[in-house]
Amino acid sequence: MADNFQSLSRIKCKELHSKLMTPEAAAALIPPGATLGMSGFTGSGYPKRIPGALAERIRAAHAKGEAFKIKLLTGASTAPELDGVLAEVDGIELRMPFQGDPVCRKKINAGDINYIDIHLSHVTQQVQAGYYGKLDIAVIEVVGIREDGSLIPSASVGNNKTWIEQADKVLIEVNYALSEKLEGMHDIAGTPLPPHREPILIHKTDDRIGDPYYHCPADKIIGIVETNDRDRVNSFSEPDEVAKKIASHILNFLKKEVEKGILPPNLLPLQSGVGDVSNAVISGLEHGEFENLTAYTEVIQDGMLGLIKSGKLTKVSATALSLSPEAVDDLNENIDFYRERIILRPQEISNHPEVIRRLGTIAINGMLEADIYGNVNSTHVMGSSMMNGIGGSGDFARNSFLSFFVRPSVAKDGDISGIVPMVSHVDQTEHDVQIIVTEQGLADLRGLAPRQRAKAIIENCAHPDYKEKLWDYFNRAQESGAQHTPHILSEALSWHDKYLKTGSMK
Amino acid sequence: MADNFQSLSRIKCKELHSKLMTPEAAAALIPPGATLGMSGFTGSGYPKRIPGALAERIRAAHAKGEAFKIKLLTGASTAPELDGVLAEVDGIELRMPFQGDPVCRKKINAGDINYIDIHLSHVTQQVQAGYYGKLDIAVIEVVGIREDGSLIPSASVGNNKTWIEQADKVLIEVNYALSEKLEGMHDIAGTPLPPHREPILIHKTDDRIGDPYYHCPADKIIGIVETNDRDRVNSFSEPDEVAKKIASHILNFLKKEVEKGILPPNLLPLQSGVGDVSNAVISGLEHGEFENLTAYTEVIQDGMLGLIKSGKLTKVSATALSLSPEAVDDLNENIDFYRERIILRPQEISNHPEVIRRLGTIAINGMLEADIYGNVNSTHVMGSSMMNGIGGSGDFARNSFLSFFVRPSVAKDGDISGIVPMVSHVDQTEHDVQIIVTEQGLADLRGLAPRQRAKAIIENCAHPDYKEKLWDYFNRAQESGAQHTPHILSEALSWHDKYLKTGSMK
Repeated sequence: MADNFQSLSRIKCKELHSKLMTPEAAAALIPPGATLGMSGFTGSGYPKRIPGALAERIRAAHAKGEAFKIKLLTGASTAPELDGVLAEVDGIELRMPFQGDPVCRKKINAGDINYIDIHLSHVTQQVQAGYYGKLDIAVIEVVGIREDGSLIPSASVGNNKTWIEQADKVLIEVNYALSEKLEGMHDIAGTPLPPHREPILIHKTDDRIGDPYYHCPADKIIGIVETNDRDRVNSFSEPDEVAKKIASHILNFLKKEVEKGILPPNLLPLQSGVGDVSNAVISGLEHGEFENLTAYTEVIQDGMLGLIKSGKLTKVSATALSLSPEAVDDLNENIDFYRERIILRPQEISNHPEVIRRLGTIAINGMLEADIYGNVNSTHVMGSSMMNGIGGSGDFARNSFLSFFVRPSVAKDGDISGIVPMVSHVDQTEHDVQIIVTEQGLADLRGLAPRQRAKAIIENCAHPDYKEKLWDYFNRAQESGAQHTPHILSEALSWHDKYLKTGSMK
Repeated sequence: MADNFQSLSRIKCKELHSKLMTPEAAAALIPPGATLGMSGFTGSGYPKRIPGALAERIRAAHAKGEAFKIKLLTGASTAPELDGVLAEVDGIELRMPFQGDPVCRKKINAGDINYIDIHLSHVTQQVQAGYYGKLDIAVIEVVGIREDGSLIPSASVGNNKTWIEQADKVLIEVNYALSEKLEGMHDIAGTPLPPHREPILIHKTDDRIGDPYYHCPADKIIGIVETNDRDRVNSFSEPDEVAKKIASHILNFLKKEVEKGILPPNLLPLQSGVGDVSNAVISGLEHGEFENLTAYTEVIQDGMLGLIKSGKLTKVSATALSLSPEAVDDLNENIDFYRERIILRPQEISNHPEVIRRLGTIAINGMLEADIYGNVNSTHVMGSSMMNGIGGSGDFARNSFLSFFVRPSVAKDGDISGIVPMVSHVDQTEHDVQIIVTEQGLADLRGLAPRQRAKAIIENCAHPDYKEKLWDYFNRAQESGAQHTPHILSEALSWHDKYLKTGSMK
């Protein structure tokens, strides 16, 4: 994209004009071994230029035989321009707390990057307490700098407040591609380490507890780079039939819970992960009967923006806007309308157990696999290979009032079953999983003991190609041994082992 | 124990005198199939007489060929007089949320009782929302009834507030064995279902947010039984050498964290599970350098009472007093002293993620086994057999500022290793486990990626008899396959399988 903006026009604080520099000059300020806290959450609000220039610097150093790696902390996933380029040049020693980049993933699973996969609500306190050492430099995208030097956040907030506070030095990218009128949409607040914590007084989705800006002493800012690059988010695609079926099971279930009086008519605040099923649920809500909906979630994608526009969704709290180019245009054109309905918060607050438990959200998250007893694997393909990370799914699953885990019943043309005898890695335990949904149906596990759960999951969620095999395992497991959670340990992981050896669980 | 008390002297509400009856008469009011919410937490404050009379009734019905089972919800574990007698007569259809009785455990693992093992902080909302159907009858021990009919709680609070509110009918046991002067020690408050929840305004361990009594409409009370039976809690025994070593690793670690400035000099509020290691930690604190300690925990055992007496521990919040006869005597004799320093709350509050995260507790919980990547099994022996339940360990592990999981490095004369390649059941995921301790040493997993964690755990925590075997597994797992969490799936559970087949993991 052409740099069609007036340089310095968004840097109202004159004192900072002297710090304007090229991405290359900014990258030159980052020393080998540095621990960097960068902005970015679900492919939005990440710095667009400095990481690329840093990657070039690392590539050049490696070409000369010099060691150069950095430790990289972000909000969550970023984009090829950040994780991708730095992983490509083998520039990342440690990565935390969530990623989704194919090159980065490959390096993690090759053992070249130490990846630390933690609950998003834990990041702030772990960095404050120094678990990752001193944070050297924060690299933060903003949409403008005000006269008093305060920073107007960009499309994602993530851990930016923490990075700015904890880092010795700060590099800023001012991005002209998003409307400056985002100003006022954010609510920046955080919590100190114990014993200094106070209640987080969010009673409902749209309560504000902070102020709209980041604050950084001018002398910590060592460089400012201007960009006009949009976030790299793909255009919205229509959910497939499988996703639509899963969504329809969820929506029917919610309708029944309202009829039973367990949920109020406008439901409870929604949390929804990313992907096809989430889009299908949002689409179903847009054409459904529920009114005055709210959301307390991590990410606002195109579908949720549409749901706001339709008037069905009245208030949304999140930590990131992850929008396609078309949706960004819509946002920019109708920014006054959206600003009244959207609050972007630090992920420490968007994912805080205190707020999630109080509001009693309805969480809908994807998974890699579930086992017959309701344990869920969110992260590891065949027990060893990291996909993306747990992200906020654990924060929401544990503390929501209702928690769904969803996926198609099979993958890889049927060679992988989404329901297995025992998951190869556990991210959400049997104590935290309430409802499992595939396109085959929905298993409501609430109030059930393990063997009752197994029957509900096999009967309702398994694909026909695997159903008999699961019944067979479950029945044989009940023939001997302890019967609280019957298993045949020599066979429990054999489906995964078979897939690794033959390419199919069949 | 002789019934050496003046009948009705603790039932100040005259209106209720007519409801006094024998345990047998009270038990006769409980119909087959009833769902019962009983008091009791960690062997304290459970009804002493009605369960036994109910068991006799069930035994008689079964002798006549009549079906008679009940669904049993409590606070946590009770005693042979409750879980034991009811399990013995095959009177329990469903059990929730925690138990520790040998007979009950046997029936659960025989498949005769459906046991639902959930986080203690989840109980209230799940019952309020009807996941276990309608609660028919609450059976609650108290130490007295005031003139206005309000109830003075006994040695444990547990879920009693919820049981009284949710049940159609209430049976009361007035226990004369504990001092009436417990009055004022309790702080009874709770939360409604969303969307009606408000912040829980506990800023420090000893903040009070409720009132000291349960309130129950007189017409819901269908019977009152008097008892003079003490809780069945064993006398304190001196921790063994292994427990002392584990405790010393923990205490040294805490000292260093204070020196580094990560913990304040008086630490943060302590949570400590039950058992030998906890006793050893408490004993270590009693003779150590830390002053002005506080605790926000579930259970107060003898050791903690001693720590209060010593002046080291100034304020304690819990949901139960689980004391030996000697300690009960001490409590009764010095009740005014202890009442100023102890608050007993509903377990919904003692275990609430909101309060635990805010206070930033230091959690120390036992475990059955940990694997080399830091996943912890708290509940299932060899993957299938339920021991006790997860209890509050998950509530505290996830939300505490520091979380320890502890156990001896071996069990069963060395035939079971406490550290295994892969745990046979996961209750605490890699995302929730920070520090693992055995008598061999301490593995600080904070800020470590999976392979780094494996090295720390094997090196520091494994027993010498198993160390080489663990290194061998870990090294071979790194020879092929994805390297984020290297495993050999065909072998990962082979140690457990071997134990089941040969009686030893060796």
